[in-house]
Amino acid sequence: MLRVQYEETIRAALLEDMRYGDLATEAIVHPQQTSRALITAKQDGVIAGMEVAGAVFEIVDARIRFAALVADGTQVHKGEDIARVQGPTGSLLMAERTALNFLQRLSGIATSTRQAVEAVKDYRAVIVDTRKTTPGMRALEKYAVAAGGGRNHRFTLSDAAMIKDNHIQAAGGIRAAVERVRAYAGLTVKVEVEAESLEQVEEALTAGADIVMLDNMPPERMRQAVDLIAGRVLSEASGGITLDQIAAVAASGVDYISLGWLTHSLKSMDLSMNFLAQSMT
Amino acid sequence: MLRVQYEETIRAALLEDMRYGDLATEAIVHPQQTSRALITAKQDGVIAGMEVAGAVFEIVDARIRFAALVADGTQVHKGEDIARVQGPTGSLLMAERTALNFLQRLSGIATSTRQAVEAVKDYRAVIVDTRKTTPGMRALEKYAVAAGGGRNHRFTLSDAAMIKDNHIQAAGGIRAAVERVRAYAGLTVKVEVEAESLEQVEEALTAGADIVMLDNMPPERMRQAVDLIAGRVLSEASGGITLDQIAAVAASGVDYISLGWLTHSLKSMDLSMNFLAQSMT
Amino acid sequence: MLRVQYEETIRAALLEDMRYGDLATEAIVHPQQTSRALITAKQDGVIAGMEVAGAVFEIVDARIRFAALVADGTQVHKGEDIARVQGPTGSLLMAERTALNFLQRLSGIATSTRQAVEAVKDYRAVIVDTRKTTPGMRALEKYAVAAGGGRNHRFTLSDAAMIKDNHIQAAGGIRAAVERVRAYAGLTVKVEVEAESLEQVEEALTAGADIVMLDNMPPERMRQAVDLIAGRVLSEASGGITLDQIAAVAASGVDYISLGWLTHSLKSMDLSMNFLAQSMT
Amino acid sequence: MLRVQYEETIRAALLEDMRYGDLATEAIVHPQQTSRALITAKQDGVIAGMEVAGAVFEIVDARIRFAALVADGTQVHKGEDIARVQGPTGSLLMAERTALNFLQRLSGIATSTRQAVEAVKDYRAVIVDTRKTTPGMRALEKYAVAAGGGRNHRFTLSDAAMIKDNHIQAAGGIRAAVERVRAYAGLTVKVEVEAESLEQVEEALTAGADIVMLDNMPPERMRQAVDLIAGRVLSEASGGITLDQIAAVAASGVDYISLGWLTHSLKSMDLSMNFLAQSMT
Amino acid sequence: MLRVQYEETIRAALLEDMRYGDLATEAIVHPQQTSRALITAKQDGVIAGMEVAGAVFEIVDARIRFAALVADGTQVHKGEDIARVQGPTGSLLMAERTALNFLQRLSGIATSTRQAVEAVKDYRAVIVDTRKTTPGMRALEKYAVAAGGGRNHRFTLSDAAMIKDNHIQAAGGIRAAVERVRAYAGLTVKVEVEAESLEQVEEALTAGADIVMLDNMPPERMRQAVDLIAGRVLSEASGGITLDQIAAVAASGVDYISLGWLTHSLKSMDLSMNFLAQSMT
Amino acid sequence: MLRVQYEETIRAALLEDMRYGDLATEAIVHPQQTSRALITAKQDGVIAGMEVAGAVFEIVDARIRFAALVADGTQVHKGEDIARVQGPTGSLLMAERTALNFLQRLSGIATSTRQAVEAVKDYRAVIVDTRKTTPGMRALEKYAVAAGGGRNHRFTLSDAAMIKDNHIQAAGGIRAAVERVRAYAGLTVKVEVEAESLEQVEEALTAGADIVMLDNMPPERMRQAVDLIAGRVLSEASGGITLDQIAAVAASGVDYISLGWLTHSLKSMDLSMNFLAQSMT
Repeated sequence: MLRVQYEETIRAALLEDMRYGDLATEAIVHPQQTSRALITAKQDGVIAGMEVAGAVFEIVDARIRFAALVADGTQVHKGEDIARVQGPTGSLLMAERTALNFLQRLSGIATSTRQAVEAVKDYRAVIVDTRKTTPGMRALEKYAVAAGGGRNHRFTLSDAAMIKDNHIQAAGGIRAAVERVRAYAGLTVKVEVEAESLEQVEEALTAGADIVMLDNMPPERMRQAVDLIAGRVLSEASGGITLDQIAAVAASGVDYISLGWLTHSLKSMDLSMNFLAQSMT
Repeated sequence: MLRVQYEETIRAALLEDMRYGDLATEAIVHPQQTSRALITAKQDGVIAGMEVAGAVFEIVDARIRFAALVADGTQVHKGEDIARVQGPTGSLLMAERTALNFLQRLSGIATSTRQAVEAVKDYRAVIVDTRKTTPGMRALEKYAVAAGGGRNHRFTLSDAAMIKDNHIQAAGGIRAAVERVRAYAGLTVKVEVEAESLEQVEEALTAGADIVMLDNMPPERMRQAVDLIAGRVLSEASGGITLDQIAAVAASGVDYISLGWLTHSLKSMDLSMNFLAQSMT
Repeated sequence: MLRVQYEETIRAALLEDMRYGDLATEAIVHPQQTSRALITAKQDGVIAGMEVAGAVFEIVDARIRFAALVADGTQVHKGEDIARVQGPTGSLLMAERTALNFLQRLSGIATSTRQAVEAVKDYRAVIVDTRKTTPGMRALEKYAVAAGGGRNHRFTLSDAAMIKDNHIQAAGGIRAAVERVRAYAGLTVKVEVEAESLEQVEEALTAGADIVMLDNMPPERMRQAVDLIAGRVLSEASGGITLDQIAAVAASGVDYISLGWLTHSLKSMDLSMNFLAQSMT
Repeated sequence: MLRVQYEETIRAALLEDMRYGDLATEAIVHPQQTSRALITAKQDGVIAGMEVAGAVFEIVDARIRFAALVADGTQVHKGEDIARVQGPTGSLLMAERTALNFLQRLSGIATSTRQAVEAVKDYRAVIVDTRKTTPGMRALEKYAVAAGGGRNHRFTLSDAAMIKDNHIQAAGGIRAAVERVRAYAGLTVKVEVEAESLEQVEEALTAGADIVMLDNMPPERMRQAVDLIAGRVLSEASGGITLDQIAAVAASGVDYISLGWLTHSLKSMDLSMNFLAQSMT
Repeated sequence: MLRVQYEETIRAALLEDMRYGDLATEAIVHPQQTSRALITAKQDGVIAGMEVAGAVFEIVDARIRFAALVADGTQVHKGEDIARVQGPTGSLLMAERTALNFLQRLSGIATSTRQAVEAVKDYRAVIVDTRKTTPGMRALEKYAVAAGGGRNHRFTLSDAAMIKDNHIQAAGGIRAAVERVRAYAGLTVKVEVEAESLEQVEEALTAGADIVMLDNMPPERMRQAVDLIAGRVLSEASGGITLDQIAAVAASGVDYISLGWLTHSLKSMDLSMNFLAQSMT
Repeated sequence: MLRVQYEETIRAALLEDMRYGDLATEAIVHPQQTSRALITAKQDGVIAGMEVAGAVFEIVDARIRFAALVADGTQVHKGEDIARVQGPTGSLLMAERTALNFLQRLSGIATSTRQAVEAVKDYRAVIVDTRKTTPGMRALEKYAVAAGGGRNHRFTLSDAAMIKDNHIQAAGGIRAAVERVRAYAGLTVKVEVEAESLEQVEEALTAGADIVMLDNMPPERMRQAVDLIAGRVLSEASGGITLDQIAAVAASGVDYISLGWLTHSLKSMDLSMNFLAQSMT
């Protein structure tokens, strides 16, 4: 990612936490005191957000040196050191919580994504995310999904056109809906249609959809849908699919499986920052 | 909350999703078309964020009417309608995902908090949150904890002084650390000391801490710490306490239990928005 | 468009012009004085930006009433009134220049687009824009292209993947480049390849591109390319095509013609705001 | 210019283009790959915006080295290299369009301005701009006019007081209008009066205007007005003056000629960025 | 003023005070409780900022009704009610401090200005402000000076050119400095020269300055300078002139007296907000 | 302070002053010219804001070198040099006013605070500030109070709960008000009660307040209140206490004295920036 993509988010997060400074640190820690610290995994997981965490430290104090010990996307194990920081002790303490808030969340998403990716490794299905991201964090969260081995569904409502049930109802049918989108949108826009039945799958194919979303279908129906599509367009399984169900869904032969919980139900990865020696400069 | 507290967050979230509009909706939905829709709980849970969700709809289109059917903090059940919206169909579709992203997350936090609060209902312990919040969302997430029945630990690093192990090490001891904070901070600042042993609890008491945090102590040790404190200052249990462990911790007699997972490991509440009749104006 | 998409741009424009007010108006115009005024076309053209212009007036003074007399996309003629405003005279004077700056630019783009669209009306070719937009104005300028009858090429670098000569060189060939993008991007992303020769067109087809851009080809070559593509994928003509050349390019049978000058070389439409009666309230 | 004057504009432009990154570049270009490239004029023109273009590259990636080969205000010729950049290939590709969008627009304005300046080179008249600038770009566009050899008319509504026909009507006459402004504005404020007839010129002189704007007058009338003013105050010709008409207007002896089209009808200068060797670091 | 000129300043001020709400008010005041309150002068003074104070209340809660009882610029007396507010009690309490912070500061500036204006009422001299304003508050503070009866010196470094000693030294003399500015700046820009001696006044006149600033001159020297200028250009006395010295300075016949302390050394006007009856809605 | 705490304030201040540059400096000063300058105290006082002033210079031009000669909180004397700057002459001139605007204001606050602190040096009383700060400047102004030797009262409405007369009235009594706050606020929140009589002091003690504010009490009453409190909780004297009255108030034995005028009635410290040699690089 480019720093311009997340820098304002970091500033906002820091000001949210210390608009008026850090009383304990200002009172206690001598400005000349420096420390080294390690960020360590307290559970197995996949890391994402190293660059963001490094930028947090650097924005807090340009004298801090941050070194990632593993690259984003790396599977690490409990007890493994993942980054090293060094600089003024007070600045390290002030940056710690914000840096970890980013790193733990993004690594949590990468870790969940990796689990889902592993679950489909014997199938053609690719894991993708959704628009169910935390307000203000979409770019970072979608980045974390990619770091975990997933791919990104559309970033915004203008990347691609997703025709949902309400659009179908408003247009008076799938064919009319697809036609209106084709007549409106530009050449780079793919059209995806949500289908809840085989009839709708058929309609979507006839209407010329680029992608058919198989919405909340039981595995057997999904398999029939995949057979019906027969590789003519892309297929995406969607709708409350849990980690346990992924393999069964993938077995239907679907091309993509989108999982809202990758981002809407985040489990932060357990990381800690441990200070080593302190010294005076 | 005041609208000024979250309005910018909403604008950022909307622009993140539709900086260039919503292709499908613009192509398909007639500008004069209006709809009514219900937001419905798809699981049991505690609602938080009604006002924010309402503001999302209103910022998208001032003609939308949003009516909360339950107040924040209400326990609702699967299938229960929680809000009603009415307005231009296109605007409703564009606002839907962002409004739900806020409402599902905040309700998820309120729901988790309520579970924790229920777990301690037979004890004096009060559930509180931490600074492990999503970057940019702290005010809203802490609000959701309160809506769920918890209380808020400090909002920022300047509300109160938390003396952690690195501060103790930097100061050369708990007493020196507390003294430095007292000499630096203003009259409204409480001083909390992290204690990992009974010796440290004793030191914190002697040093004049207002709150002693019992950090990662086994229940038996915690009970001894609470006995030692004997109500002279407030006590807070902290450190990786799971939902299953809360009651045992509370049984120690501690005053507060802080839980990072209320906000760092969010499970969005399952909500959906269902369109009722559409009509032309 | 939604107001949230352009509101900040309006505020910035107003502050750029009157951070410290409007000396002449403040000195001269009585606060109680109200006026009616008409915005009138001083040339033939296609209107775009009515809603934005209305929002400028409303942000300057909520008491102003703005009424569009024609919808965006309408072809108007010299002398035709296109909008009516009414409100405090001072506020109208302060808003005038900023409102016209938006409206004239966007209408200028819509007008140029309409000319291009007219030029291809006997062909299948559709006119599209590019990323050569004014910094900070992309959403509005792309909207104006659509109002003029064109369509939008990708809005951002993440909507679709355009493989240019440098990408081809970096990847070591078109096939490798397309493969890398397919392996990286999500299901909704179309892949477009810039081709400068028939060999590259052939390569792009083989590699599985969704769109082939025929870059700076003479009409005869373009026709050959279109024949080669034979409707299997979309084709886009690009590269310094002037208004005079459009028809010849379209005659090649290409699907899309992208024109940088729609936005990079803007000719504002000539509009004026004329005050009618003034009165005291 | 100071970087603080345009830095936010650059960030906004970059985010407008790659809020979610650059799919093709991320997928294809190796992070260690570096390139050198040249920015080259594809037409004759006057350059403006070198510093801004350099800042775009630097904000995208601090490792990029940008070297201007010509200073702003320089007349360059087709085929001439105007800047050299060097750095990570991916970052160069991501910055390219935004940097050129600034540089081409500002150079386009400088080039148009230079044409107008050349047209009056045998007269006393000085070319000035107007407030008809692109929303959000005024500081940069006015800078480009100066780089092209023009001068800047007022930047904002509070720099100087321009008394227009509506002000005159509201005040009940030119004299009253000038008096009200003199009584209201500070010592540094010049008062300019728009005059449409010789009578109004006379009134403006009597009223003590500092500058008389000769609005939409035919050349002969303008000459009479200039004679009437007789150097007592500054005179400015305004109102739809085309490049062809400038010399005739200047021949009237007027001090300044203001041209809205310098900024409202921009023709971007044709520039391209060409990559030289790529290598791995 | 237009709301767009100060709205962001109000939002920033509110967030600075209640990013996380108002604990006491939220805990105690019932949401349905409404109150009426009066804002009352606790000292004699001149009011400025009514509109801003009203906007603070409205931004906190759109249901609050604010009515100014006196207009900006009015001299009020101790005990006089100056505004009435009515609305939800909690919202009134939350807005109170921020509204008063604006109103007291701006009224303080207006009051100081009025004292200075009174001190010169028997002379031609006009009181003006400087650029010594509070960071972020310039537009409002300059407005308050005007409300107090003063006039505004330049708002920014681009409204007018002030040639100071360092400019003179850099140019190699006053004449060269004025010439360079004339050759660079536009037609609306006045040139003011700082003169510390009669020789410099003479030089400034010869060089064609529009305004001569008599910098830190003793009254007798100032009188000589005014005689020397003889009404040919405007004169401004400047440099640490206290309230006691104003009349003596004005007696020199100078046109303007600029006073940094109007804004750099603010004495807030003593105002209080007193609640009347509370009731439940 | 961390730079992230004040950087945006600096940018806003610079843009407020030179959105369109500095005409005199641009016209006159050669880009290659460099200067050295000293910032010197023109009165005795206490310095605050060195870091902010340094950041202003650096944001204007990264080539400027700023060296503080004294630390914040230092008492300096008239004629003493307090900082040295070196860099491009034009940039120094452009930064000068903004840097001094910050430094003079903050040093003015530190100086006033030091006077108050000196006045209580023989008593236990500690000087604290209030929320009567300049909109947008609270963090910096509170920092300046601390630099002057005072302490900070609460930063925001959520740091601590201050129960005022309107809260007491709304709750129906002090006891009820305190109880409601205790039941609502978190463990780190102190509760302060405003008391206007000894009866209210007694009630506040009984209700369990952490701090009792003695509001506008005459010295004798205050002494009685302090006796009544008898060290059980903290006491704060408040309400229009002038510098002359501080010692008498402190003699009552009160713990804290809060002074609104530290920030609401600022007297900027007199500082000047004097250029030394200029040279060409």
